[in-house]
Amino acid sequence: MSFKEQLNNYQKYVNENLEKFSAVEDVPEKRLDEACKYSLLAGGKRIRPILILSSFKLFSDEFEECIPFIIAMEMIHNFSLIHDDLPAIDNDDFRHSIPTNHKVFGESTAILAGDKLLNSAYVVLSKGTKNTKDIKRYIRAFEELTTATNKMISGEFVDIECENKIIENSLLEYMHKNKTGALIIASAKIGAILAGADESQIEILSQFAQRIGLAFQIKDDILSEIGDEKITGKPVGNDNELKKSTFVTMYGLQEAKNKLDDIISEAIDIINIYDKKAEFLKDLALYIKDRNS
Amino acid sequence: MSFKEQLNNYQKYVNENLEKFSAVEDVPEKRLDEACKYSLLAGGKRIRPILILSSFKLFSDEFEECIPFIIAMEMIHNFSLIHDDLPAIDNDDFRHSIPTNHKVFGESTAILAGDKLLNSAYVVLSKGTKNTKDIKRYIRAFEELTTATNKMISGEFVDIECENKIIENSLLEYMHKNKTGALIIASAKIGAILAGADESQIEILSQFAQRIGLAFQIKDDILSEIGDEKITGKPVGNDNELKKSTFVTMYGLQEAKNKLDDIISEAIDIINIYDKKAEFLKDLALYIKDRNS
Repeated sequence: MSFKEQLNNYQKYVNENLEKFSAVEDVPEKRLDEACKYSLLAGGKRIRPILILSSFKLFSDEFEECIPFIIAMEMIHNFSLIHDDLPAIDNDDFRHSIPTNHKVFGESTAILAGDKLLNSAYVVLSKGTKNTKDIKRYIRAFEELTTATNKMISGEFVDIECENKIIENSLLEYMHKNKTGALIIASAKIGAILAGADESQIEILSQFAQRIGLAFQIKDDILSEIGDEKITGKPVGNDNELKKSTFVTMYGLQEAKNKLDDIISEAIDIINIYDKKAEFLKDLALYIKDRNS
Repeated sequence: MSFKEQLNNYQKYVNENLEKFSAVEDVPEKRLDEACKYSLLAGGKRIRPILILSSFKLFSDEFEECIPFIIAMEMIHNFSLIHDDLPAIDNDDFRHSIPTNHKVFGESTAILAGDKLLNSAYVVLSKGTKNTKDIKRYIRAFEELTTATNKMISGEFVDIECENKIIENSLLEYMHKNKTGALIIASAKIGAILAGADESQIEILSQFAQRIGLAFQIKDDILSEIGDEKITGKPVGNDNELKKSTFVTMYGLQEAKNKLDDIISEAIDIINIYDKKAEFLKDLALYIKDRNS
């Protein structure tokens, strides 16, 4: 199976499971549940749940064990997008090429929809305990997710604090390691933990995902600078440059591209230990580097 | 020991544990952690964690088992207060007689502080799994908390939807059952679950807490109408009346008072099955009825 086919299969698996957990009932809070569903099913690359599944697949094929975590991970990711887009934070009008949650449902509903998605992640995880084959692994993966989510929220805070400021490289890296990196690293680790990987194997996945997370952000910054607005769905160029420090404003475009190449090479070297089994993860690393949206 | 002494002891126990979990480190997100701490330690009656402890005490004395849940419960309660107070929602300037979170830290930080408190509740619960003596009870209590929190968020949404509208009694009760009731009922149940109560015992606590939750809200509505603004720290009278339906606008003041008396009598009758052991819970019911703030 080609990488693209495998990627599509994973995305389909994730989306089917997300739909199952997004049924909207005829209750007085129906409109709130619709707001949650709107963002959760708005698309996106599903990188995080795919990392859970593809890390898991290095050690086991029984994907059912991952289901509560792939749902919870996307709920948490989408909660963070809804709140980041709010007028009081990034004030964005579009996300995944459609209007942001607060543009459709209003600000108060968007705040509560973010809250409900975050909490629903833990509803799903608490109910999922009934079906797990290994409660110890499950609880460890749960702790991994909670601590990563706190890091993500903290990273978002640092991002806001740094707006319109020239900041040091170390703070920029700290911010991204938390804001984008934490959930990506947690995803790879959670897959390995749930599949029963040992400590050294979990650490390899963690090292791989650290590079993937950083590469993801550098590529985002490059796309913000030179991407095709029609494809990325985000504004390109000067505006962003004035607003905040990025890897491009910090290193320059060419150096940022070189850094991206180096980090992806490192990621591939790390995961090569799993040889043919890691084919998908290696292609995923290249996909993150070469994507145009 | 008198009721007041026992209440003070419980509050002290809760506050000491909250302080332990609120240490602010010298990290780039320090100001966010300060915002979380500001609201978490701002006071309040600590009714929910006290319900956990006093329900637990009907069946066991080993309070350590409750610690992760009393912390998590107050974190979730305070997350909801911070977000409810936001300009886009209730737009309140004061809470517990001090400025609301967004008035001190700004709107974007207040949104993220609410998010971080909600998620930190689950960080505490995930780490707490290491010390529990009974993981099955622990997980059941965890599920109780996650589902109650979703109800609370949904109730808040219904509350916003109902502003400036005349609504039916059934919708008003639905809203309060979720917004205020869900966490109060969950608290009583969690205490019983953690202490190893059987299903019928858990149900008794649930029935008791349903009345307490409803009484709490009716009393709040009465205080909004005729309370002493200097003691309640909330505006009194006409303004609220115009803004939303309350038990007072719906039944009239005298009928609301009668309803409150009846519900508290019911609560006391229910918990009387535990006789002397339930002395504190009976006094707590009376305290909720007679409080002036």
